[in-house]
Amino acid sequence: MNFKKDKVYDLNIAYIGGGSQGWAWGLMSDLALEPSLNGRVRLYDIDHKAAENNAIIGNELNKRDDVKSQWHYVKSDSLKDALTGADFVVISILPGTFDEMDSDVHTPEDYGIYQSVGDTVGPGGIIRALRTLPMYEEIALAIKEYSKDAWVINFTNPMTLCTRMLYKTFPEIKAFGNCHEVFGTQKLLISALKDICDIDDVKREEIKVDVVGINHFTWVTKATYKGMDLFPIYEQFVDKYYETGFVKEGDDNWMNNAFASGQRVKFELFKQYGYIAAAGDRHLAEACKGSWFLKSPDRVKDYTFGLTKVDYRKEKQKNLREKGLRLRNLEEQFEIKETGEEAVQQMRGILGLRDFVTNTNLPNKGQFSNLPKDVVVETNALFRRDRVMPITMGDMPMSLLGLTMPHVTNQELVIEAVTERDLKKAFRAFINDPNMKLDLHEARQLFNKMVKNTEKYLPDYFKNVEV
Amino acid sequence: MNFKKDKVYDLNIAYIGGGSQGWAWGLMSDLALEPSLNGRVRLYDIDHKAAENNAIIGNELNKRDDVKSQWHYVKSDSLKDALTGADFVVISILPGTFDEMDSDVHTPEDYGIYQSVGDTVGPGGIIRALRTLPMYEEIALAIKEYSKDAWVINFTNPMTLCTRMLYKTFPEIKAFGNCHEVFGTQKLLISALKDICDIDDVKREEIKVDVVGINHFTWVTKATYKGMDLFPIYEQFVDKYYETGFVKEGDDNWMNNAFASGQRVKFELFKQYGYIAAAGDRHLAEACKGSWFLKSPDRVKDYTFGLTKVDYRKEKQKNLREKGLRLRNLEEQFEIKETGEEAVQQMRGILGLRDFVTNTNLPNKGQFSNLPKDVVVETNALFRRDRVMPITMGDMPMSLLGLTMPHVTNQELVIEAVTERDLKKAFRAFINDPNMKLDLHEARQLFNKMVKNTEKYLPDYFKNVEV
Amino acid sequence: MNFKKDKVYDLNIAYIGGGSQGWAWGLMSDLALEPSLNGRVRLYDIDHKAAENNAIIGNELNKRDDVKSQWHYVKSDSLKDALTGADFVVISILPGTFDEMDSDVHTPEDYGIYQSVGDTVGPGGIIRALRTLPMYEEIALAIKEYSKDAWVINFTNPMTLCTRMLYKTFPEIKAFGNCHEVFGTQKLLISALKDICDIDDVKREEIKVDVVGINHFTWVTKATYKGMDLFPIYEQFVDKYYETGFVKEGDDNWMNNAFASGQRVKFELFKQYGYIAAAGDRHLAEACKGSWFLKSPDRVKDYTFGLTKVDYRKEKQKNLREKGLRLRNLEEQFEIKETGEEAVQQMRGILGLRDFVTNTNLPNKGQFSNLPKDVVVETNALFRRDRVMPITMGDMPMSLLGLTMPHVTNQELVIEAVTERDLKKAFRAFINDPNMKLDLHEARQLFNKMVKNTEKYLPDYFKNVEV
Amino acid sequence: MNFKKDKVYDLNIAYIGGGSQGWAWGLMSDLALEPSLNGRVRLYDIDHKAAENNAIIGNELNKRDDVKSQWHYVKSDSLKDALTGADFVVISILPGTFDEMDSDVHTPEDYGIYQSVGDTVGPGGIIRALRTLPMYEEIALAIKEYSKDAWVINFTNPMTLCTRMLYKTFPEIKAFGNCHEVFGTQKLLISALKDICDIDDVKREEIKVDVVGINHFTWVTKATYKGMDLFPIYEQFVDKYYETGFVKEGDDNWMNNAFASGQRVKFELFKQYGYIAAAGDRHLAEACKGSWFLKSPDRVKDYTFGLTKVDYRKEKQKNLREKGLRLRNLEEQFEIKETGEEAVQQMRGILGLRDFVTNTNLPNKGQFSNLPKDVVVETNALFRRDRVMPITMGDMPMSLLGLTMPHVTNQELVIEAVTERDLKKAFRAFINDPNMKLDLHEARQLFNKMVKNTEKYLPDYFKNVEV
Repeated sequence: MNFKKDKVYDLNIAYIGGGSQGWAWGLMSDLALEPSLNGRVRLYDIDHKAAENNAIIGNELNKRDDVKSQWHYVKSDSLKDALTGADFVVISILPGTFDEMDSDVHTPEDYGIYQSVGDTVGPGGIIRALRTLPMYEEIALAIKEYSKDAWVINFTNPMTLCTRMLYKTFPEIKAFGNCHEVFGTQKLLISALKDICDIDDVKREEIKVDVVGINHFTWVTKATYKGMDLFPIYEQFVDKYYETGFVKEGDDNWMNNAFASGQRVKFELFKQYGYIAAAGDRHLAEACKGSWFLKSPDRVKDYTFGLTKVDYRKEKQKNLREKGLRLRNLEEQFEIKETGEEAVQQMRGILGLRDFVTNTNLPNKGQFSNLPKDVVVETNALFRRDRVMPITMGDMPMSLLGLTMPHVTNQELVIEAVTERDLKKAFRAFINDPNMKLDLHEARQLFNKMVKNTEKYLPDYFKNVEV
Repeated sequence: MNFKKDKVYDLNIAYIGGGSQGWAWGLMSDLALEPSLNGRVRLYDIDHKAAENNAIIGNELNKRDDVKSQWHYVKSDSLKDALTGADFVVISILPGTFDEMDSDVHTPEDYGIYQSVGDTVGPGGIIRALRTLPMYEEIALAIKEYSKDAWVINFTNPMTLCTRMLYKTFPEIKAFGNCHEVFGTQKLLISALKDICDIDDVKREEIKVDVVGINHFTWVTKATYKGMDLFPIYEQFVDKYYETGFVKEGDDNWMNNAFASGQRVKFELFKQYGYIAAAGDRHLAEACKGSWFLKSPDRVKDYTFGLTKVDYRKEKQKNLREKGLRLRNLEEQFEIKETGEEAVQQMRGILGLRDFVTNTNLPNKGQFSNLPKDVVVETNALFRRDRVMPITMGDMPMSLLGLTMPHVTNQELVIEAVTERDLKKAFRAFINDPNMKLDLHEARQLFNKMVKNTEKYLPDYFKNVEV
Repeated sequence: MNFKKDKVYDLNIAYIGGGSQGWAWGLMSDLALEPSLNGRVRLYDIDHKAAENNAIIGNELNKRDDVKSQWHYVKSDSLKDALTGADFVVISILPGTFDEMDSDVHTPEDYGIYQSVGDTVGPGGIIRALRTLPMYEEIALAIKEYSKDAWVINFTNPMTLCTRMLYKTFPEIKAFGNCHEVFGTQKLLISALKDICDIDDVKREEIKVDVVGINHFTWVTKATYKGMDLFPIYEQFVDKYYETGFVKEGDDNWMNNAFASGQRVKFELFKQYGYIAAAGDRHLAEACKGSWFLKSPDRVKDYTFGLTKVDYRKEKQKNLREKGLRLRNLEEQFEIKETGEEAVQQMRGILGLRDFVTNTNLPNKGQFSNLPKDVVVETNALFRRDRVMPITMGDMPMSLLGLTMPHVTNQELVIEAVTERDLKKAFRAFINDPNMKLDLHEARQLFNKMVKNTEKYLPDYFKNVEV
Repeated sequence: MNFKKDKVYDLNIAYIGGGSQGWAWGLMSDLALEPSLNGRVRLYDIDHKAAENNAIIGNELNKRDDVKSQWHYVKSDSLKDALTGADFVVISILPGTFDEMDSDVHTPEDYGIYQSVGDTVGPGGIIRALRTLPMYEEIALAIKEYSKDAWVINFTNPMTLCTRMLYKTFPEIKAFGNCHEVFGTQKLLISALKDICDIDDVKREEIKVDVVGINHFTWVTKATYKGMDLFPIYEQFVDKYYETGFVKEGDDNWMNNAFASGQRVKFELFKQYGYIAAAGDRHLAEACKGSWFLKSPDRVKDYTFGLTKVDYRKEKQKNLREKGLRLRNLEEQFEIKETGEEAVQQMRGILGLRDFVTNTNLPNKGQFSNLPKDVVVETNALFRRDRVMPITMGDMPMSLLGLTMPHVTNQELVIEAVTERDLKKAFRAFINDPNMKLDLHEARQLFNKMVKNTEKYLPDYFKNVEV
């Protein structure tokens, strides 16, 4: 790495999961548009071919006039090769395939348990963690060996657990976890400003929010725009759309987009708790008791959001794969546009090019006084040269603590399950999840079935075990 | 108070709720059998007549040969009169009447929510707290004014919240909360010793248990008898009776005693968690998710325990009242026998007559590192001259923390609800209870209905309010 | 207050101690140069005349072309008048007169105890606190009554204790304490960059420092400039000037400026501890054991700093007073120039005009995991709309904790002394100060003498008392 | 180990340092007098001959009529042999010889620094730790390998650091540290009861004390005897003897016994702090600032205690060695008498033969809320079957915290110095000790000299290093 006249050259990025068709392309785009960074990205993926394709696609960009920097993409055949010399490590993997995710999300439906995403908490999130965390243990050990001073950015879900596992395995790691869910809430506040106060042209970064919670179950406890307190405005906004939902026209309409919502979950939680729930409704719903928002597909519809079916994901992935081939074969031109993700700006912060405050996921070293030390929490943090420093938030409000702690204790149990190779501990998390309404007997059946369904991607110590 | 030759004279006890037919008689009996204590008990009750009757009954004992000490019982007409000069204050009140308790326990049944006791957690426990805690606020203020140096023993449920309220209102108070539920588990371990190892004649006090948790949801994390570790023995015992329950013959049989059980809840929890749940099954069941043990009356029966109907309590109370009249009129002789309660031995500890270790309820000032400071927890404590000092337990095991924290946060919310006069906070506890499976709409309906049903005993600030 | 097009109008500032000739003029200057803020400053001082003069001086500025904003200055005759309606409260008072300060600083010299400043820790700092904190108790109560939502900026020493007292008296106060000492260290790092790397034109704000400690005894545990780590550079710089000190030419030379130094204390501490001590040498020396830097006037000279004599301060004050009269009488023109203080920029942050990160003094609510909660510490904080949020620093390194804790415990004892009206507790702090080398008998003599000397400004409960 | 009818047979004790002539004989005596314990003691010592002699002496006892139990003593030639199969491990070693201790205690005298013991804190205690802790690291690793379930009782000084090192190296160890200093304070309270109230025949165990602090710098914050509060009585006692000291007649007179004192240090500390300092005056003096009690040999004399010269220890050791030879050769009969130590009673507690509450040294897992986790502290603890459970003490009073924290941080620095092999960290502790009054230059000289003097017993990583 080479810092010269407020630009950085020869930066080395290792991308674990570099064959991805979503996040990887996004990063390529954001890097291409950032004039102050130049360097090399090593793409490592267990699907070597996919990584190779992405390298071809990425390098093609250098020939274009509309890129503002030069990046060389190289396929790596090993973690060692990718990590050695890295300044940054980006991790964005799919643990297992969508077939395993299919089981995570849909097997519980046979028992009347619905999940809108199934990758963070709930039966799906917990089982997903069982196959993901052993991979993260391996990655953390490799980072410790090959690039211990690198900054590590995690994008994989379950976010909290993946980030926690990195620190558990290699406590000196410099890692943080990135999630864009809060951005959606900032945008919703922009909509409220427009709708209630007729204020236009507000940028997302101008909405200043205090972020409190854990990933996908975050809350905004204070929100301002310039000199304005946004809470009374949001309250009016909620009152106005509480019954109908706030439905945008076009592609983002929740009825034709499995990732969108009419925000009624968010509005309901505001009514009950007085704070602005800050993740997407699909994630929020899963973090609450199942009876509230996920009682049945009809209830989900009433609350104007959707259950993201894995078939939908499979279809989407298929399209992306085909698009990938076209891009590699130059049958289609790569579209360079800002993703709205912040990783590149965070890198600039860490490189010393700017100070930057945004929300991220980090171990609790004092951010929250009433949460256990070391569990991964989401708050704002200051990004500056070689630092990511969280803001001190004091005590989490008691009502939010009550909603949050089941997940915190469950997540610690899942970490213990993996580090101690003890499946029973995972089951204790499983039955304590707020969306788990089965009795102990049925829960055990479901758990064993789901573990079985993902067995192919489990480490040996979790194979052929039942609780 | 007067300490002379290892005996204490002129001890002053204030009994708040001194008209009771259960606990008050028990204390009379235990005092009568303890040769080292003598003095005066002032009985205060909002039912003055009942207190007066008990004074008559108590004073009658002094004439008998089988008492080992002399106690004078006086009816007090005011808190001030009862408290002034007290060395000990015993509080054991019935907040409201059994009619209000009827609503606490049975109104949720209309919504499919079953409660086996309904006085600690769950919808019933929370509503009961709303009428009880304002009374405790008043009592704490009176103690602060009239007997600030007295030791205060609480017997009223919800135990945790009543004790917490005393400290919240008057932080320098010297109070602790007493509960005999753990004794039942010690007795069960004696049964296991007999059943598995054929060891006889074990006294309850010889079963040494490490107590971890909150009242009515305590766990034994270590149990020994002399040189023996009782966990492997209990494990065999659980395996033997897991299916059938451990059913004693006679009155204690769970099928004809609403307070007894076949211990299957306890056995199930041992299977899942590896620790010995230490309260009675009726209390344990309520503290867990409703789907586990309280799904339906049939499920309750399967787990070999019972739902304690309030009619049953009313009947029992009626019999006690009649008995009380007979005792007062000397138509029946008061039976003096040890109750198995420990209050008198705790008093002896505090008076300097003996060192004594037993479980009790105290604010967390370090007993548990991973629970919030000041919440009331149950652990062993050392009772000695003018001290009740809890044992340091370190971190509560993560799986137990997961089960316990919902109640801890709920209890803090209920305290906040009362001290801030904010009913919404109580509702946040209500919907977060593990036995609450309703959706938010139904939960609100039920809450408002239950609040209404107890309105007569609520302070003004909770009247005519809906959430 | 009125926020319009990225400017604020009608801002209300209460200035307690508004007759000052130093800080008040500085604030006038900085306000005059800031185009985005306009409003009114109410000047309250027990010296009403001085406040009135400053109002005249301040209002004169509005007539000039070189001011960028309009500010109206009004003399207030009461705290109530000054505080009512205030958006910001600035507190900068001289507790007592320089005669009392003379005793604080120089009476211990009779016992061989030298103090380079005498207003923060040591015998002088503690006695100063005894007369200052009761005033702060009064100010905090007035703020609670008249301007509870205002942001309060403290400039008075002892900084830590004054800020702590505000929160102790009115826990919901929104106060922080400002100090420019760290800025000097940033400038020293600029000198090192120039001296070692020949890098020019670095702005103070570009030196990014992690600030750790308590006021006047802060440490920089990480320092960067753009992409550079400044520690290896500082290490070379220290090695180069360790023996001689780093002596600038001109007015800032330590030999002719009682506030300057050759930085040898800082260099010595770097050698011993590996961190950059971040206050001026005069403050650092006082916070350490007396034997290290303050053994004798000669030792002070060896370490290239000076003992700030109070006569010097008196002289300086006299000059300022005379200048004040000339300014008021328009015999001299007020010079408008940036002070380098950050209060106005902090206000802009709090008003929502910018995000701003700088060091400040706040109660510990998690910034340092291994310091007690609520004690006032100095770290970086994020200033944004209606927030001052400290950065989480985790554990203070053990060697710094060892140096810091004596002051932390002493400061808490002084607070207890004032709130409990118990002079003995102050004496316990007095004898535990690292610069106190007397035996208990002599220490008691000195303490009583110093208390006597400041008696005129003590509250009644500290008068006519000896320890 | 074999538990039968309230007696234990076949108990295995490993005695590390088993060649000692003091503690080992004491243990032999106490074991011989305890009828409920029988078994085998393996004596390991780097002086194999000394261990062998003790085995002969110990086995001789079995032939006598006045022993109440049977114990077999065996010399072990290796840690492995001694530890394998052990139920208890007793560690009581002399790290280095009295020649090294001579340097620890007396070298600082050349610089005007006096130490009354020199084995706990101060220059002597720190240097002693540098050679002791590496040995403890080795012992802890051996225990981890050969007897991980054994209970470990430490008697070696520096007590706090040795116990801390055991846990640092092997966190699951079941170790505690024993010290009899508090017993002396209980006896002093018996003297006060006799002297002030004319109460006779009080047993030490009847004096109930709350113990707060770290080893050799403990405080009693509450003391009772039966129903009496001992503080007002002690206050009268202190007033009576404050000037003269409380001097017993006979051997214990401080003027002819280097281990005795007239208690004036204790009385002075009571006057200043209002709590009863609970270690012997020689230890207390060292833990305070040097200027208070150790300013000069004359000051020591004024405070009616003595500087324990190492020559005195050498002489005493020589006599014991000769006695040891006479005992082995049956030229002198071993005198069996109770030592007043509690190790055997603690063993009985741990074995399940009794419940027992006494003071001991354990890692802070919540005993003190305002001390760092894991540092070793001294409080009361409950000894029962397979448990040593400390009493929760809440916050240490602020004035005591101020006196204690320098040692706590220093001790952690010394542990870091050893585990990180970084001598500079030990020097940071050295200069921060309250009895270190030198400037940094002289302190460095003294430190390097003292390290050199003990080099023979230092591990390689501390050899040939200077700070």
